[in-house]
Amino acid sequence: MTNLYETRLSAARAAMQENGLNALVITPGAAMRYLTGFSEPGSRFLALIVPAEQPCLFVVPALNAGQAQRNPAGVSDIRVWDDAQGWESVFGPLAEELTLDSGSIGLDDDMPAQFVLTLQELMPNASLNLAGAVLAPLRSRKDAGELDALQRAAAATDALIPVAYAACRPGASEIEIAMAIQQAIARGGNADSFAPIVGAGVNGASPHHNTGTTQIKTGDVVILDFGAMTGGYHGDITRTVAVGTASDEAKHVYNIVYRAYSAGVAAVQPGAAAQDVDAATRKVIADAGYGDYFIHRTGHGIGLDDHETPYILAGNETLLQPGHCFSIEPGIYLPGKFGVRLENIVTVLEDGTARVLNEAIPPEIMMV
Amino acid sequence: MTNLYETRLSAARAAMQENGLNALVITPGAAMRYLTGFSEPGSRFLALIVPAEQPCLFVVPALNAGQAQRNPAGVSDIRVWDDAQGWESVFGPLAEELTLDSGSIGLDDDMPAQFVLTLQELMPNASLNLAGAVLAPLRSRKDAGELDALQRAAAATDALIPVAYAACRPGASEIEIAMAIQQAIARGGNADSFAPIVGAGVNGASPHHNTGTTQIKTGDVVILDFGAMTGGYHGDITRTVAVGTASDEAKHVYNIVYRAYSAGVAAVQPGAAAQDVDAATRKVIADAGYGDYFIHRTGHGIGLDDHETPYILAGNETLLQPGHCFSIEPGIYLPGKFGVRLENIVTVLEDGTARVLNEAIPPEIMMV
Repeated sequence: MTNLYETRLSAARAAMQENGLNALVITPGAAMRYLTGFSEPGSRFLALIVPAEQPCLFVVPALNAGQAQRNPAGVSDIRVWDDAQGWESVFGPLAEELTLDSGSIGLDDDMPAQFVLTLQELMPNASLNLAGAVLAPLRSRKDAGELDALQRAAAATDALIPVAYAACRPGASEIEIAMAIQQAIARGGNADSFAPIVGAGVNGASPHHNTGTTQIKTGDVVILDFGAMTGGYHGDITRTVAVGTASDEAKHVYNIVYRAYSAGVAAVQPGAAAQDVDAATRKVIADAGYGDYFIHRTGHGIGLDDHETPYILAGNETLLQPGHCFSIEPGIYLPGKFGVRLENIVTVLEDGTARVLNEAIPPEIMMV
Repeated sequence: MTNLYETRLSAARAAMQENGLNALVITPGAAMRYLTGFSEPGSRFLALIVPAEQPCLFVVPALNAGQAQRNPAGVSDIRVWDDAQGWESVFGPLAEELTLDSGSIGLDDDMPAQFVLTLQELMPNASLNLAGAVLAPLRSRKDAGELDALQRAAAATDALIPVAYAACRPGASEIEIAMAIQQAIARGGNADSFAPIVGAGVNGASPHHNTGTTQIKTGDVVILDFGAMTGGYHGDITRTVAVGTASDEAKHVYNIVYRAYSAGVAAVQPGAAAQDVDAATRKVIADAGYGDYFIHRTGHGIGLDDHETPYILAGNETLLQPGHCFSIEPGIYLPGKFGVRLENIVTVLEDGTARVLNEAIPPEIMMV
């Protein structure tokens, strides 16, 4: 019987062959979870080795050996190193055993430089590349189980919207609003996808504002960007609201961003590339005269990572395919005034159009 | 007037000269906070460039430009890239302007491989090294302000001990205990140093057990490892308790680990090296016949990172110096039975001995 991880590993090996890679060295994170269901954070070297033609194995610190032995993919060759010897004492002989030094190796895209440079020393003749070239295209097309997990993450995230709105009272600080969202996530038995971004008034003009002690005032435009994670898959939405009353400018800018978002969803069509979705949202904002105030890409893929391929930006000619999942999140940021961003997660259906995983975004700015 | 960041930068530049480094490229994290007071998480390329002889500068994504401009160190040269162009479009010309390509560059130890390999492509003649060789020795010796911050983090962490003990009731799950600790951290206005580790009964035999749904039973030995972070500095302690009643074996093993911990603290003496502290704890455990069950190093440095130099392990000949701060955390892990670990943070005083930043550890296993 072929299990999920065997299927993914076979696909990865086929892609390794196409890319001329002799092995992957994957450190803890989304790629390791994708291939084995296992990952374990920590500062010590822990890696999954995927040789092109031999069984996979793990190199793990002694204190994680028990956890690695229970990896869901059933990888049974676990090489354990201890703190006194260091990981190089196990990896060096292993590289020789697998003749990695003469090969082309795909490193985890997020592997820390301290390991990258040591691996280059241990394998001076190896050509180092990124495993993402092989794994990102596979991970970007979600299977039925992954789509189900992403839909559940979207539902858990949508359930936070009323909590966030209720917390946006005059006098409440951004941090208090973020904590209300986080507590609701914990009560639901889930984890944060990321620390919620709450940007009130002028703070909202900084797209990744550091949620702080600024207190909400009547008339503030507030950006609320948050997500719940379920089963290892991320949720991520953004809503923008006005507290008590909204200025004409806030209503006007919101309307432009709403139309940009809608144009982005509509641009998901058979034959469309990632850059076409970006161009669609950007055109609405530029035509309205706010092109200089939309200072980031339209979106990012989402799955086991909260940011992964496909990225929705100018120059990305990747064709959209069924199973792609990504955010559409245009924004307008007016320095010294406020910001508006609207975001939902979409998936590409078999017919090439988009299905929005989240609740509909209100066409006009909500007063809370 | 020389401010904190200017002092640190001067020391870093002196060390760069000793190490023959022409520039540092520092990505977000503890090193960036150490040098500038600024850091900003995210998946996009954001870096502090420290040339040996020219002013520092930042390369930042457009959506973080405002935040970078407010960096506490007052670095004023901010080079902004946008998503459509990519960061290489800004870094490439900058490398040329600073003639980095012919130099020796120190990369942030935690810089993701995707940036490391791209930097090597952009600067094919540059020799890539680790910035940690320059920064770690500086960061490991804490100044008065840092010691104060670490003492406050220790106090905030100690304040969680009664919360953790009270949560260890029969029927409570490991996750519920961890959440009680996390909620107390949040109520104190602090952040987690790391996700609390709660290992009940046989789970405690895995040093970095993944806190789960296991319910506490009377007679369980429970490992509780947690910390609160204040002002960017980390706290980290471990206590081991027995629920209701303790077996003779639990009392016996606890006593050995307590004596090992005490021997570690006592080994912090003028002229001692990091490895001597490790040898001291290990000898107590080995002499008691449990040497094979102490499967990790004795400790780790702590500061802006929860794990940093000096590491307290065999082979580390680094001499202990005033201002060094690190954990002493021996443990015994009995597969299928339970684990015991005891941990406090110590700092090395001017006279070469240790001051323990945390509350005294009970000499006999506590019943909760």
